[in-house]
Amino acid sequence: MTADAETPSVGEAGPGRAGPIALREMGSFHVGGRVVRLEGQPAAEYLMAEGGQPVRIDPNGSYFVEQMYAQYFFVQDEGGHWPLLFWHGGGMSGATWETTPDGRSGWLHYFLRRGWDAYLCDAVERGRSGFAPVPQVWPQGPVIQPAESIHGRFRIDYPDTQFPREHFDRLARQMVPRWTHTDGAIMAAYLELLERTGPAIVVCHSQSGVFALRAAHARPDLVRAVVALEPASVPAFDPAVPYRAPTLVLMGDHIDEDPRWPRMRDRIQAFAAQWPQVEVVPLPARGMKGNSHMLMMDRNSLEIADLAHDWLAALPAARRAD
Amino acid sequence: MTADAETPSVGEAGPGRAGPIALREMGSFHVGGRVVRLEGQPAAEYLMAEGGQPVRIDPNGSYFVEQMYAQYFFVQDEGGHWPLLFWHGGGMSGATWETTPDGRSGWLHYFLRRGWDAYLCDAVERGRSGFAPVPQVWPQGPVIQPAESIHGRFRIDYPDTQFPREHFDRLARQMVPRWTHTDGAIMAAYLELLERTGPAIVVCHSQSGVFALRAAHARPDLVRAVVALEPASVPAFDPAVPYRAPTLVLMGDHIDEDPRWPRMRDRIQAFAAQWPQVEVVPLPARGMKGNSHMLMMDRNSLEIADLAHDWLAALPAARRAD
Repeated sequence: MTADAETPSVGEAGPGRAGPIALREMGSFHVGGRVVRLEGQPAAEYLMAEGGQPVRIDPNGSYFVEQMYAQYFFVQDEGGHWPLLFWHGGGMSGATWETTPDGRSGWLHYFLRRGWDAYLCDAVERGRSGFAPVPQVWPQGPVIQPAESIHGRFRIDYPDTQFPREHFDRLARQMVPRWTHTDGAIMAAYLELLERTGPAIVVCHSQSGVFALRAAHARPDLVRAVVALEPASVPAFDPAVPYRAPTLVLMGDHIDEDPRWPRMRDRIQAFAAQWPQVEVVPLPARGMKGNSHMLMMDRNSLEIADLAHDWLAALPAARRAD
Repeated sequence: MTADAETPSVGEAGPGRAGPIALREMGSFHVGGRVVRLEGQPAAEYLMAEGGQPVRIDPNGSYFVEQMYAQYFFVQDEGGHWPLLFWHGGGMSGATWETTPDGRSGWLHYFLRRGWDAYLCDAVERGRSGFAPVPQVWPQGPVIQPAESIHGRFRIDYPDTQFPREHFDRLARQMVPRWTHTDGAIMAAYLELLERTGPAIVVCHSQSGVFALRAAHARPDLVRAVVALEPASVPAFDPAVPYRAPTLVLMGDHIDEDPRWPRMRDRIQAFAAQWPQVEVVPLPARGMKGNSHMLMMDRNSLEIADLAHDWLAALPAARRAD
């Protein structure tokens, strides 16, 4: 934690904000997915590059679909903690965790600087995971959502907003198409990732909150803790199987003024009321006002990261057994 | 270059193969693109997450399309060299440069370990760059190419192949859909990236060879050198404008046995005959046999990286002015 030694302890100059990142290893891989076969389709000729040689492609054959991409960054000293898996929200990719619209470090770098190993994931059908390019495999197309639809749903238009609205375009450029019928494939790939990584802590946002809670419920041996930023929902669990993972849920501001978020918040609070190891923290109760749905992009994103970090650092379940 | 001190100098134990990576900074951003407006389309209702609240989305409005994603990794000591921009081939993403099908380090990590700053890019419409989800913007769909079509085009099926064929599935999982009518948008974003990075060296493969040569021709002030792995073509330049960038072109094996590659190779050799600062190296002439189109994934990928590294390290144009 080199940065800590160089910097004072609060605000933009606090721990994890700046300084070098010493990695013992980094790389990437794809997990999961399935092979589908296409038959009976006509061939087509393509010119794949300007001035190149035309090529006739027979589309019939095998397609690898529904795999998931993960990048890993392992720090020189992980301090005895389980690695963090960063799972992004709907319409986003791993880039969510890399930078803020106003160009500051993302949560990924914050936690690397504070000495945590990390995996940066693109959910199935998003980013470097690719998507099924064959209409016969996924009959439905992606959701068609204009930039304007984001303003309301992400609660960024309040006068006291923490979201850097003057850089809204940088959020819009980060967004990638998403589908709505791929939950099963996304979940399968996340579970396969956990089999590969071994015990881990999931840091999730919005849509991926559903997958993180479901993974924690299904595999308490692999999901040791969850930090959930405004999870979009709580999935319907088998009530006979207890939920075990220590879970911190962080919620932003202006939820009561929104047409949809009160019910989403209520569902999460009902879940927390059922399982004592689930803690819901409305950020306004901690003196943080004006946060949007994009907690990891808001101006105070690293103060919120401090909160998550301190919760994790104090959690015995976040540490490897000695 | 910590790794160098720890390891001997040849083969799998040579420089750049292993050892820690000390970064002074890392992050990501999107550049370029344009805003398109959609009008006159019907609204639709979606359930975006299991157990979530349904949302009605009016698709009419603004879409940010044709932006490009780049990740950057800056090492503690860049040794006075310009940064490397890694540009992938058709149907791939930045993941091309991160790992090999047999699970070894990619060229990205090799060059980071040897002390070069690097930008890892996803071309427009691929990976974390996203693609235009609105049929009205891009009337054509992506190319539909099954895994089988790769075998021949990538020249991986020869008995002496260096391609790790037993892990072909890992290459197939890396592939992402690509379009064939987006060259203009891809090129515009690469030029915008260069404006942002300043002078740089482009390391490119296959399709992106066309973009790299075009960028080097258009902006000799920004493209200081090019390392091109089997560029798919040479674009048609204005012959009145000289090509200035020192350029190393590396070509694999079995080109004469392929129906398309001899003409692609001939075009590159004609280009090199015209401009003396362009050097074409057929790897068999250096004693490297059996290389496929995927030089950075073949078993001897890091020996090929050594060759590129030594060429760059000896090149005055690769260094910042003192």
